[in-house]
Amino acid sequence: MRHDGRRADELRPLRFTTGYCDYPAGSVLVETGKTRVLCNATVEERVPPYMIGTGKGWVTAEYSMLPAATKERTRRDVQSLKLSPRSAEIQRLIGRSLRSVTDLAALDGLTITVDCDVLQADGGTRTASITGGYLALWLACEKLRAQGKLSSNPLKGEVAAISVGVVDGEVLLDLDYSEDSRAEADFNMIMTADGNIVELQGTGEERPFTRDELDRMLTVGQKAIAEMCKVRREYMC
Amino acid sequence: MRHDGRRADELRPLRFTTGYCDYPAGSVLVETGKTRVLCNATVEERVPPYMIGTGKGWVTAEYSMLPAATKERTRRDVQSLKLSPRSAEIQRLIGRSLRSVTDLAALDGLTITVDCDVLQADGGTRTASITGGYLALWLACEKLRAQGKLSSNPLKGEVAAISVGVVDGEVLLDLDYSEDSRAEADFNMIMTADGNIVELQGTGEERPFTRDELDRMLTVGQKAIAEMCKVRREYMC
Amino acid sequence: MRHDGRRADELRPLRFTTGYCDYPAGSVLVETGKTRVLCNATVEERVPPYMIGTGKGWVTAEYSMLPAATKERTRRDVQSLKLSPRSAEIQRLIGRSLRSVTDLAALDGLTITVDCDVLQADGGTRTASITGGYLALWLACEKLRAQGKLSSNPLKGEVAAISVGVVDGEVLLDLDYSEDSRAEADFNMIMTADGNIVELQGTGEERPFTRDELDRMLTVGQKAIAEMCKVRREYMC
Amino acid sequence: MRHDGRRADELRPLRFTTGYCDYPAGSVLVETGKTRVLCNATVEERVPPYMIGTGKGWVTAEYSMLPAATKERTRRDVQSLKLSPRSAEIQRLIGRSLRSVTDLAALDGLTITVDCDVLQADGGTRTASITGGYLALWLACEKLRAQGKLSSNPLKGEVAAISVGVVDGEVLLDLDYSEDSRAEADFNMIMTADGNIVELQGTGEERPFTRDELDRMLTVGQKAIAEMCKVRREYMC
Amino acid sequence: MRHDGRRADELRPLRFTTGYCDYPAGSVLVETGKTRVLCNATVEERVPPYMIGTGKGWVTAEYSMLPAATKERTRRDVQSLKLSPRSAEIQRLIGRSLRSVTDLAALDGLTITVDCDVLQADGGTRTASITGGYLALWLACEKLRAQGKLSSNPLKGEVAAISVGVVDGEVLLDLDYSEDSRAEADFNMIMTADGNIVELQGTGEERPFTRDELDRMLTVGQKAIAEMCKVRREYMC
Amino acid sequence: MRHDGRRADELRPLRFTTGYCDYPAGSVLVETGKTRVLCNATVEERVPPYMIGTGKGWVTAEYSMLPAATKERTRRDVQSLKLSPRSAEIQRLIGRSLRSVTDLAALDGLTITVDCDVLQADGGTRTASITGGYLALWLACEKLRAQGKLSSNPLKGEVAAISVGVVDGEVLLDLDYSEDSRAEADFNMIMTADGNIVELQGTGEERPFTRDELDRMLTVGQKAIAEMCKVRREYMC
Repeated sequence: MRHDGRRADELRPLRFTTGYCDYPAGSVLVETGKTRVLCNATVEERVPPYMIGTGKGWVTAEYSMLPAATKERTRRDVQSLKLSPRSAEIQRLIGRSLRSVTDLAALDGLTITVDCDVLQADGGTRTASITGGYLALWLACEKLRAQGKLSSNPLKGEVAAISVGVVDGEVLLDLDYSEDSRAEADFNMIMTADGNIVELQGTGEERPFTRDELDRMLTVGQKAIAEMCKVRREYMC
Repeated sequence: MRHDGRRADELRPLRFTTGYCDYPAGSVLVETGKTRVLCNATVEERVPPYMIGTGKGWVTAEYSMLPAATKERTRRDVQSLKLSPRSAEIQRLIGRSLRSVTDLAALDGLTITVDCDVLQADGGTRTASITGGYLALWLACEKLRAQGKLSSNPLKGEVAAISVGVVDGEVLLDLDYSEDSRAEADFNMIMTADGNIVELQGTGEERPFTRDELDRMLTVGQKAIAEMCKVRREYMC
Repeated sequence: MRHDGRRADELRPLRFTTGYCDYPAGSVLVETGKTRVLCNATVEERVPPYMIGTGKGWVTAEYSMLPAATKERTRRDVQSLKLSPRSAEIQRLIGRSLRSVTDLAALDGLTITVDCDVLQADGGTRTASITGGYLALWLACEKLRAQGKLSSNPLKGEVAAISVGVVDGEVLLDLDYSEDSRAEADFNMIMTADGNIVELQGTGEERPFTRDELDRMLTVGQKAIAEMCKVRREYMC
Repeated sequence: MRHDGRRADELRPLRFTTGYCDYPAGSVLVETGKTRVLCNATVEERVPPYMIGTGKGWVTAEYSMLPAATKERTRRDVQSLKLSPRSAEIQRLIGRSLRSVTDLAALDGLTITVDCDVLQADGGTRTASITGGYLALWLACEKLRAQGKLSSNPLKGEVAAISVGVVDGEVLLDLDYSEDSRAEADFNMIMTADGNIVELQGTGEERPFTRDELDRMLTVGQKAIAEMCKVRREYMC
Repeated sequence: MRHDGRRADELRPLRFTTGYCDYPAGSVLVETGKTRVLCNATVEERVPPYMIGTGKGWVTAEYSMLPAATKERTRRDVQSLKLSPRSAEIQRLIGRSLRSVTDLAALDGLTITVDCDVLQADGGTRTASITGGYLALWLACEKLRAQGKLSSNPLKGEVAAISVGVVDGEVLLDLDYSEDSRAEADFNMIMTADGNIVELQGTGEERPFTRDELDRMLTVGQKAIAEMCKVRREYMC
Repeated sequence: MRHDGRRADELRPLRFTTGYCDYPAGSVLVETGKTRVLCNATVEERVPPYMIGTGKGWVTAEYSMLPAATKERTRRDVQSLKLSPRSAEIQRLIGRSLRSVTDLAALDGLTITVDCDVLQADGGTRTASITGGYLALWLACEKLRAQGKLSSNPLKGEVAAISVGVVDGEVLLDLDYSEDSRAEADFNMIMTADGNIVELQGTGEERPFTRDELDRMLTVGQKAIAEMCKVRREYMC
């Protein structure tokens, strides 16, 4: 039994609020436990320089935390005149994950930027950003379809993400901050609804971990991803 | 009759949600029409270098807009490696306004930072930041009092802010974006509940304006500030 | 009687030296008491990106202080790799003020940059920059006219600026640094020669101030602006 | 048979040159095929601010590529006034991997910085940096031991890294640039000599991949890591 | 005969205005022809971190050009968020030259910063900065002596600087901008009053030059430096 | 007799390794004593904006030191978000020196960048960069000729560089770090093979030096440059 009453393989309550903001083409507030991320997908009729002439569009992401999202106030990146390496790393991950299920050729001439702004952080902000960002991106594509700018939705698969870790020797799903900070191993899993792997990032924080532990983590993660996709699918219509 | 049905001297609906975030000492989501600003007041047990040895604490503010808060997506400041002059100007204004009603000596040893993050912008984000930021600051001070860190609330007055402008020759209160962008004159008024002036910033956008127009704008503004303070007072207990 | 012998509503000695530099189209050294600002207006045959295709030209300003302009040496902005918020705020104000009286359509294809570099600062540097910058801009426009690049001078009004404050309960005009640093209220007024308001920026530094005090400050300011425009007009021929 | 004649599970030739530079405590030029990384470990008698008072020392890494290391010249990070996100991400990975096998308590009062500068890049620079950086770190620790500054070597395990990918449906070990750029899946594996996992980072570049593919990649990677540690052990005496 | 009527070895008119600014300890406006540099020496009662504990004080310089100092307006360094390499190079040269004749031990505990701000540039700004900066520094030292903070002036020699070049095969002294821009060789000579060399920087702009040409340039430069020191000496009393 | 056994006018052992890297058009590792600089010349089919339309190509240089190249580890420039003034100054010098012997018109449409990365620094890194950079540039030009992109080699002369100093009153050639740090005068001489001067930069570090000392330094330098060119010529075929 975990400190918040969950079973080892139990997700935190997962909520999506669509249409949270009025201007972006897709807008989703995703909440998982106390973690709260605002995901907004904006469409621009241009492609970045390195995509010009490729016949493809682009999907990118930006990630940032509000200063008061954390227990100790976090300094804004702009104060130190540079993007923090952590933010840079995370937003690259979100972008890659979303592009992995997008038919970029179908987006030719368009760039969709998915802004993931963390309003409150209690562990799992990067995985929530991917899970919520996918929905915002899907909604933006639907809007483009309704406007006749796309003939079909270019998302060719469903992607979601979750963290799994080993705490006190036990495999736990969807770590909150207090669990994450004492995890021996910590994995971020980005998968499709049918359990294939889009990206895996895992670290032995306290000690190296075994292939057997990895296998157990993957099994728990696959099941959770399928469950999350099912919850999210209700907002996709 | 204005495009949204308001009278010339009518405020947009004003809503405060307190406790929007869990970690900061004071947290307020302020909404005025479609403008939505998250104001979080965080307490740190330190003072900035220039206040050391003065026997006083400090109150400061930071202001930022989410990229998707505007109709056209706004680039993040950190992308250009500098704080935009507009943001810098606004956060200095918020800070000065809040300090003007704070007994800094009573805050000795403490810094309270009020983060104002604009989730959606439809005109009046800087004035909403002051009106909402004051409440977040007040809540943080009350919390310090409850914790025994302050013997009384150091806010010695109530401050709120509103925009007043001249559009098509008529004085209008609380401009939304569409009104603001075609205003001939545009004023931000920061006042106390009893109508004294904390800060005035006004520009003749299209043409210089007369002292008579200024007088009419001030009268409308004073009345609105009193009304806003009254609404807000319900959250201060 | 003030510390330098002036009456409450008396300006410091105001001097203009035109043609101070050889290269810029308009060059003015403006001195008000010990405050000394070099205002140079440079013409470039281009418009900024956001004005292309609007059929208008542009007027902008940059403001900076020499390090030794202040009693304590001030660090150069470039040392901290960013423009100080104070400088940014001031140069935006100067630019807006000058544009308010310029027919930008008549400047189509041209950008005039007014550089205001403070050689010595004893209060009132931003207002001196506007008053002197206007003259530099006017001289540059006259030169363009003499060169046949403009058919008439695009400045459709005269703008000047002055500070007015409340010190020890008394309204004082044109504060020097020692007065400014103990002012209860401090106003920068930018007006046309006939007393209409281009921009007002005022702060209750120590306490909120009343509408009555505002009225008295405006009256003193209007009279001074008219007087300054009259002095300056002698250099406009 | 691969384009360079290797078998699917065959490493490129792996060479270590120790003592490449004279000044750093540990200096290793690591070469794997045409990839060449200079790893230098420098000791400083200080700890970073966030480690002060923890009774621990610190190990960190910096990663950079010479501009001419790539087929197309790469712009220096300093030219754009910021560390590239890719470099930031990689140096954080190297640092974490090296710390995972270091007894930081035994390094109290010391910081060891491992600089990994890529002289030539043909795929696998981050994994080569870890494999070579470990040896540079080990040599620096031995030197500290010889100088009596450490009583024993604080490295409590051996760590090495390798890339494994799926190309044309086949699992390939130690991808060079031409293979890497058309891989369907691409994994960086950081493991101990006995096959436990320190960090895993894998991406389905072209398509999601299956758990079965992951398993086959891990098996190939584990074997290679053991082999690399064996080669490297000859330089550790 | 040169385009402005000077002989090959003739200086431009050299003028010093002392006390140009009120606040710095030493203030000199130096003019040589149309080149005009404001040199201000400021004293601070601190030494930079790298001089702490050495028993010595410090002399440093900063160099900058006003944007309108040149025929084409020059962009401010702060706009590109970095000090231009040219400015950096020049201010290091000025600092080294001034320190070469300063007894730093006599300045223990003090830093003197010599700001050289170019109001107008017509060639020779860096040499004028050294020649004028020396006088500003001397005046600041005399002031410290008058205040009893120094027992004697720590300047143990006189240093001045001049440019000499080869134009159309002829050695010319004190090049103005039009001469400088078509010089085949261009030398900046920093020497003591008695003709010894503090620093030499010379470039064959169009072609390498011979030792014989160097000799002739040195002879002309030595004579000019002595002459300049004589003119300047009148202001040192 | 010097500390390493050399005569006063004796060069350190000078070695060139060509083809050190595979990708750049010209690649040279130059070693002089313990100083080791990797010089890579890369060709790009573009010219910088300020050369467009001039009918000329461009040659430029970048200079950087690896952090572990020095006895005390040197912080990377990118860490402080700016190019160090020293690096900026040196790379400008290298670029000017190489351009002085290049027929830029023959390079029309091309930019050659010579990257000089210091792997180990023991004095004389800037002069080694010029001497080695010239060879890298020559090799790149030969490659362009072999590819038929140039009809002849655009290098119209040979340039090399050396340091000469005065230590304990004696003129010494090719100072290593320990000599350089106690030199009274320190000269960097860039000359053609036949002894003409491309650039001279000299400083009296401890005291001004005389014209007689300068003459003796030049004689020693000229002889060494001729010798270095002779050694280098063996690699130019």
